[in-house]
Amino acid sequence: MARWTPGARGRLEQAAFELYSENGFDNTTVAEISARAGLTERTFFRHFADKREVLFGGATTLQDELVGATANAPDDVAPIQAVAAGLEAAAALLSERVALARQRQAIIASSAELRERELIKLASLGDALAETLRKRGVGEPAASLTAEIGIAVFRTAFERWIDEANDQDFPRLINASLEQLKSLAAGERPLVDVG
Amino acid sequence: MARWTPGARGRLEQAAFELYSENGFDNTTVAEISARAGLTERTFFRHFADKREVLFGGATTLQDELVGATANAPDDVAPIQAVAAGLEAAAALLSERVALARQRQAIIASSAELRERELIKLASLGDALAETLRKRGVGEPAASLTAEIGIAVFRTAFERWIDEANDQDFPRLINASLEQLKSLAAGERPLVDVG
Repeated sequence: MARWTPGARGRLEQAAFELYSENGFDNTTVAEISARAGLTERTFFRHFADKREVLFGGATTLQDELVGATANAPDDVAPIQAVAAGLEAAAALLSERVALARQRQAIIASSAELRERELIKLASLGDALAETLRKRGVGEPAASLTAEIGIAVFRTAFERWIDEANDQDFPRLINASLEQLKSLAAGERPLVDVG
Repeated sequence: MARWTPGARGRLEQAAFELYSENGFDNTTVAEISARAGLTERTFFRHFADKREVLFGGATTLQDELVGATANAPDDVAPIQAVAAGLEAAAALLSERVALARQRQAIIASSAELRERELIKLASLGDALAETLRKRGVGEPAASLTAEIGIAVFRTAFERWIDEANDQDFPRLINASLEQLKSLAAGERPLVDVG
């Protein structure tokens, strides 16, 4: 009977991403993903609740990294600096996987359902970040506002990172985006290139 | 046959909000809303696609106000100031309707489906704002980042505005939130009260 297969999760992810890219998310079945990975559907469902979950399973790891590094920032830093530490850690986690991130983003952009799911995941990430800041003693509305601008910085840097023309690493783009945030919030006019 | 009824839309909105608050969104039917408003279902469907749309129909008006005032800000102001003009205009539009906004927010908070719809509407608002900034000549990623922090400011000020304990008007809270954004982005520690 179905035994644990080493590397099964990674093989299923790779097969799913390939099939979503080739045939579209809506046109791909769990049976096809499992077959391409050389595994059974039963194994698929031990790793993922459904075919959508293959795209969003990494969100928990990302959130743990973001929240953990924010929580562990030195006590005496300002809220935005604690968030910056979290964002850099999350970016470092993804940093080696730019091809995968690019492929995933193209799949998500292709489907209204997936775009909505992505928005909901980002909102959860923001909520978790705000909660982490409150636990650090940051009051409201500062905690929520800092968390939301942190997510805005992450999204902006992420878009630049996965751009085909980009050659900078993700943590560096996070820093550039934080600098631009500071400048924009202060009412300065943006430079054309903030790299 | 069904003729145009003056004030029908407003009566349907009021009836729907009452029923959603009393019985829950999921447990309310279009038939009940129409009956309470003293109108036919046919009239309901001339104004709204479905019962969810009653809660989100105002989003278009809000977006028009936000985008219009941002687009019409003086040419020489910084992006965040153009957005500030848009946010203040949108806040002024809602300002007299705090009881309704509070009731609506409680209904939305009660349903996962409605919370998701609200996130999607806010994301559309952010996209429209970024597009408005690009038309003003703001490049990327500054346009997207400014739009997203603008939406974060709006959400934070909105939460404070509908708080039962609040007695400040919405445009004033927008200004307080913009000041806090500037201070947080600069790496300052938040004051306990930014009112």
